[in-house]
Amino acid sequence: MPPETRPTIADVARAAGVSKGLVSFALNGRPGVAAETRQRIMDTAAELGWTPSLSARSLSVGRAFACGLVIGRSPDVIAADPFFPSFIAGLEDEFSVTGQALVLAVANPGRQEEATYRALASDRRVDGVILTDIRVADPRIALLAEVGIPAVTLGVPDVASPFASVSTDDGAGIRLAVEHLAGLGHRRVGHVAGPSGMLHAQRRRDAFLDAADAAGLDVAVVETDFSAADGARATASLLDEATPPTAIIYANDSMAVAGMGIAHQRGLSVPDDLSITGFDDTEIGRWVHPALTSVATDARGWGVAAARTLLAAIGGDAPTHLDLPDPTLAVRGSTAPPRARDARPTTAREHE
Amino acid sequence: MPPETRPTIADVARAAGVSKGLVSFALNGRPGVAAETRQRIMDTAAELGWTPSLSARSLSVGRAFACGLVIGRSPDVIAADPFFPSFIAGLEDEFSVTGQALVLAVANPGRQEEATYRALASDRRVDGVILTDIRVADPRIALLAEVGIPAVTLGVPDVASPFASVSTDDGAGIRLAVEHLAGLGHRRVGHVAGPSGMLHAQRRRDAFLDAADAAGLDVAVVETDFSAADGARATASLLDEATPPTAIIYANDSMAVAGMGIAHQRGLSVPDDLSITGFDDTEIGRWVHPALTSVATDARGWGVAAARTLLAAIGGDAPTHLDLPDPTLAVRGSTAPPRARDARPTTAREHE
Repeated sequence: MPPETRPTIADVARAAGVSKGLVSFALNGRPGVAAETRQRIMDTAAELGWTPSLSARSLSVGRAFACGLVIGRSPDVIAADPFFPSFIAGLEDEFSVTGQALVLAVANPGRQEEATYRALASDRRVDGVILTDIRVADPRIALLAEVGIPAVTLGVPDVASPFASVSTDDGAGIRLAVEHLAGLGHRRVGHVAGPSGMLHAQRRRDAFLDAADAAGLDVAVVETDFSAADGARATASLLDEATPPTAIIYANDSMAVAGMGIAHQRGLSVPDDLSITGFDDTEIGRWVHPALTSVATDARGWGVAAARTLLAAIGGDAPTHLDLPDPTLAVRGSTAPPRARDARPTTAREHE
Repeated sequence: MPPETRPTIADVARAAGVSKGLVSFALNGRPGVAAETRQRIMDTAAELGWTPSLSARSLSVGRAFACGLVIGRSPDVIAADPFFPSFIAGLEDEFSVTGQALVLAVANPGRQEEATYRALASDRRVDGVILTDIRVADPRIALLAEVGIPAVTLGVPDVASPFASVSTDDGAGIRLAVEHLAGLGHRRVGHVAGPSGMLHAQRRRDAFLDAADAAGLDVAVVETDFSAADGARATASLLDEATPPTAIIYANDSMAVAGMGIAHQRGLSVPDDLSITGFDDTEIGRWVHPALTSVATDARGWGVAAARTLLAAIGGDAPTHLDLPDPTLAVRGSTAPPRARDARPTTAREHE
């Protein structure tokens, strides 16, 4: 629309039935606005097609009005994993209303990634960045502290961090999966884990080992790069063991669907011969047959929370830590009790 | 790295064994550099972690050094469709080396989308935009012509367009699927199509109808919003017909996987009772069982081509049209001849 018809904050205030000051507070993500009022204002702004006048705001406050997301995975893995599109949709839910642009980059860990972050910061392309897939001793924390732009991390790093963070307890979801399978009578359970260099993958694996130990299960763990191809390979290696597991817990849904394919290929019935659980509760997992039992996280809600937390940090708030609700377990057809002969420890049966 | 160690074009030239001028030409996407030389220069630049000094370049040429991608689908559909992550990875393959930032937005068609494009252009956030999912009589063509920023469209619009375009012949892929199924002996084939408001979905449907007509097949078409849930619903409605198809051609892989789930739920064997083909040849389709026969397009290569074409337009080149190679058909286990009784027209059999 031409400039004269571009809706203003006054238009949004009138339509939402609140003061201009409150609209401004809400749209800039400042605290002190009740959640439902804020939502109503944001909905009204979206309906009217309100966008902030960037040049006016940049001049007055010296900001880029953009946030950066640098994804450090290979494009193939990103394409196979619906987490990122959902998470990005959540970021956009927030940024589209507050008028932030999302600058996206894909860079491999290492020198190219460091150069990407430095370029985003030194060229003032972005006011802050979102860090996903936090690594063991993640070098990006010190890098961003040095270049001096605000950040929010998904999960709490294992090194001292000056940045805000937003977490969900992945381990709680894995524990639910282990307890579900133990309750069904499984005694040998495998875990197809993500890369051990990523903290969240490590935490899921540790939670698996702890919960399996508490339930007295025999375990086997295979590490992957999160890709469906690697999930298929890991499944084959678990099924090739002398006493293969009767259930496998996967660190994402794509690998679980690939694992289901391997089971079918070998003539194993899911869930009767092999129970399978996924992680992230993606749409595709709901439509395969049998439908996938999966740890349900809220990737989109996580995006919204990360965006809000980052905007508060950019606005000068002290770094906060926000805990999102624990994941739940969506139980579907891919898990069932093991066949009777597998319900007892194999070692006992073998010597009968 | 601190500014003094930031690699320069001279460093890239030295490492690649070419002149500084050639590096500059290659990194700015100008014509006249042999493809393999260009690739070597880009690889060398990536290895060294070279990034353009944005502030220096912006001052000298008055550009944002950013390109915009506004996705007009619902976040749920984006999350279920691996096309976008692969396509974005292709854009990044190019932009990460030329130093363009990718500004990503998700906006619903309508006023919010128009406001988003206007904000990107009027705030000089981007130098150009990439238009995907071109619609029937797409209003974005006139909008972008009016606001005056370069664009590249994926596919040729059905309205006069001043912009460059990059196409692949989706119809050729659908024709291959129809001919494959007809060759196997199928006589009744269904098509689960995308939204008819999107030109590429319409072109796929038209190609389906033409090829099916040429092969003398009975057909049924159901329209969807491209989501897996809608793919499942469409499959159920095709299977509920008085004479259900013995094969279904889906407009994307997510819907095909969902359709396979519905078939299994109903006790139908894929491919013996129902042959299924997908579109886009995604990783997940290779790992379900049976593995999915799918039209193979090169989403990542399309991203690279779109980025290059847009950079040329931003650099002042006249709009060009680039045809990418036709899709191929990856034949896997999800397609087979129909059971004998289905190979003849049902009407004949019913009156036997």
